[in-house]
Amino acid sequence: MAQEKKIPYKIYLEESEMPKKWYNVRADMKNKPAPLLNPGTHQPMTAEELGGVFCEELVAQELDNDNAYIDIPQEIQSFYKMYRPAPLVRAYCLEEKLGTPAKIYYKFEGNNTSGSHKLNSAIAQAYYAKKQGLKGVTTETGAGQWGTALSMACSYFDLDCKVYMVKVSYEQKPFRREVMRVYGASVTPSPSMNTEIGKKINAEHPGTTGSLGCAISEAVEDAVKNPGYRYVLGSVLNQVLLHQSVIGLETKAALDKYNIKPDIIIGCAGGGSNLGGLIAPFMGEKLRGEADYRIIAVEPASCPSFTRGKFAYDFADTGMVCPLAKMYTLGSDFIPSANHAGGLRYHGMSPVLSQLYDDGLMEAVSVKQTDVFEAAEQFARVEGILPAPESSHAIRVAIDEALKCKETGEEKTIVFGLTGTGYFDMVAYEKFHEGKMDDYIPTDEELAEYAAKLPQID
Amino acid sequence: MAQEKKIPYKIYLEESEMPKKWYNVRADMKNKPAPLLNPGTHQPMTAEELGGVFCEELVAQELDNDNAYIDIPQEIQSFYKMYRPAPLVRAYCLEEKLGTPAKIYYKFEGNNTSGSHKLNSAIAQAYYAKKQGLKGVTTETGAGQWGTALSMACSYFDLDCKVYMVKVSYEQKPFRREVMRVYGASVTPSPSMNTEIGKKINAEHPGTTGSLGCAISEAVEDAVKNPGYRYVLGSVLNQVLLHQSVIGLETKAALDKYNIKPDIIIGCAGGGSNLGGLIAPFMGEKLRGEADYRIIAVEPASCPSFTRGKFAYDFADTGMVCPLAKMYTLGSDFIPSANHAGGLRYHGMSPVLSQLYDDGLMEAVSVKQTDVFEAAEQFARVEGILPAPESSHAIRVAIDEALKCKETGEEKTIVFGLTGTGYFDMVAYEKFHEGKMDDYIPTDEELAEYAAKLPQID
Repeated sequence: MAQEKKIPYKIYLEESEMPKKWYNVRADMKNKPAPLLNPGTHQPMTAEELGGVFCEELVAQELDNDNAYIDIPQEIQSFYKMYRPAPLVRAYCLEEKLGTPAKIYYKFEGNNTSGSHKLNSAIAQAYYAKKQGLKGVTTETGAGQWGTALSMACSYFDLDCKVYMVKVSYEQKPFRREVMRVYGASVTPSPSMNTEIGKKINAEHPGTTGSLGCAISEAVEDAVKNPGYRYVLGSVLNQVLLHQSVIGLETKAALDKYNIKPDIIIGCAGGGSNLGGLIAPFMGEKLRGEADYRIIAVEPASCPSFTRGKFAYDFADTGMVCPLAKMYTLGSDFIPSANHAGGLRYHGMSPVLSQLYDDGLMEAVSVKQTDVFEAAEQFARVEGILPAPESSHAIRVAIDEALKCKETGEEKTIVFGLTGTGYFDMVAYEKFHEGKMDDYIPTDEELAEYAAKLPQID
Repeated sequence: MAQEKKIPYKIYLEESEMPKKWYNVRADMKNKPAPLLNPGTHQPMTAEELGGVFCEELVAQELDNDNAYIDIPQEIQSFYKMYRPAPLVRAYCLEEKLGTPAKIYYKFEGNNTSGSHKLNSAIAQAYYAKKQGLKGVTTETGAGQWGTALSMACSYFDLDCKVYMVKVSYEQKPFRREVMRVYGASVTPSPSMNTEIGKKINAEHPGTTGSLGCAISEAVEDAVKNPGYRYVLGSVLNQVLLHQSVIGLETKAALDKYNIKPDIIIGCAGGGSNLGGLIAPFMGEKLRGEADYRIIAVEPASCPSFTRGKFAYDFADTGMVCPLAKMYTLGSDFIPSANHAGGLRYHGMSPVLSQLYDDGLMEAVSVKQTDVFEAAEQFARVEGILPAPESSHAIRVAIDEALKCKETGEEKTIVFGLTGTGYFDMVAYEKFHEGKMDDYIPTDEELAEYAAKLPQID
């Protein structure tokens, strides 16, 4: 029998142990995620239709519900080696501080300049754009993590990168903008005068500070109108979850190396890219009946798509130019209150995760903002890392579960995703310190009002 | 014969391979660094005198010119395991971009929340303060890296941490200040009304935005006047170089693991803590005649203590309350122009490095600010990591040396220290992008004027 090895503080895989294929959880799902629909005809989007907006190989990945493993191209593997493997960290200091018998691990994705896991998919999407001979890509960014990741990826492959940044973020987060410029991206505050939709919105709402929905619409229009460009998106899509499976595959390989079997797997969920990637291989085992895990999605109480949304077809953007997706949603014009976890302020949720949640294969909880920052600070003080507000949602629930173990005496093994660092989120920490952070939660009436506006599709 | 192993992108040591002792290069120096002098009597500072300001065990380390190896206490080893080993990265992408036959490696110290190598000494100094039963420590910070590192270390050992932050930085860098508050430090803009010297300076210069020299004086006064407090410093001192030897020891262990022998070792130099740490074991071999290396210190042209300073006794602070140190110096009231590498804007240089440089055991070059940022951006775009302006001085010279190899066809192995990340330096990057960065270099006349004011000590 294998002896139990002493677990180091950080488990790093060898390069030779890093994943060479992404894992496509859809292949093992009995109930597949519902197809994207054409917003005009309400018919399933064809590869040809999607090809006008997205790169060809990414369209193929988007539509592929059958192949469980997809080769990671050599060029992407090389890039991954620059900043991966991400460490799986044993939170010895946090365990000691909590006095819990639970064993806590976190997969830390923040050790790269984009500051989050977003780079895992950005590099893949840039690679396929380059391979297709495109000149460049367009995208939108809110808080800036995704735009930064894409800028880095495009810089590596010498692709043009046009980022539409929500105007309020562009003005309030000049540092994020500047990081993108270091990587050669052009960053345009949205709404801009570059696009028809931007001009229209500027005319109708003079002085508007923009929205993510508007920025998406501008980026899509820019891509569709300019030959040699395609649009790329950092979350929600099936292809993004596929690329992010590298998180879960590395996590599982690291755990397997030390014969560790997790009981609970926890991730924050906005559009779902981190959570979907982290849980992929574990969910695969669960779907195939090989193992069982508690899987918990954590979302902000201010934007509770899983816990209080509807499972229905909805628009991915407020401009309604994108395909319709069947997902847990609060309605495409739901405007979350100013939660500082910008990456979690999305009205919908990945169709893959939505289906899995609807099938009872995972749980979801929502947490209040101030409780999240309290956990973030507690974590920072003992584990050293200053976590992103998004990631801190998972920390909150990991701590809560570890404290339950303290009560019951159970030695559960908890794994959570630490998606990124909070270096560009200090305004939020400052508000927290000064007691100026609110905990607004939408009322049932508000949510019902948005839900009533969902498109009616069978 | 050992076969040449394929070198991975990143070499991580196993926990069991991490250093268990610091290396004290002074033990192998034929010409020892000159002792610190009492500013009043000009006699060598005794352990007793130093003990009023510094912790006891740190005083012992400061004065120890004999013991080559000093055990790293178990508690510090545990903390090191949270964020170390730091990876030794093979810069494959940079090499390819430059088209050089040189092999380039960098030791990356930025993967922790303080964003730099400063944490290596901060945790040691906090540990000894805790062990001595102190309530807390005081320090100053300019750009904020050291203050952040010390806050993290004090939080870990539950020590009070009082940081005097130069007022202009306090106001212009609220994010750094806020990170320190996450870790529970009290951050006071200097000059403050907490100390006699602060009150005096505020009275004499109403509206002053402070200086590092003033902040040091305030921190020292606060420590000396408050029972249970000592003052700690993040660079220059022998003890700090000792702690930072962990950088070089890990680097050497990683290189040895793959039978790599460097030809050139490059580090940026402000007070000298990073450079002194990186080169320590290599310099040891050189001093013992076991190996030879080219060792290059890189400093800003705006603050050229090695290349244009005097090797003489000088004050460590402008307030002249600290002991006198024999070092390469520009004069304690030299005010460098606004170079954005805040960590390199110190008038003096570590006495250990000063002696080694004077003995011809290392070289020094100075580089212009805009050339540094050009190298920083080039590096960021191919290696992914956004470097700190300080670290980018080393990048500049590493690239220059690699380009020389391209001309000569030599396959030299270059190792440089990448001390930290630039996430809090985006204002500087912005100035660079907008062509607003100056390259001021002090004139000979200016430097002579400051040099004339050096204290006259034989």
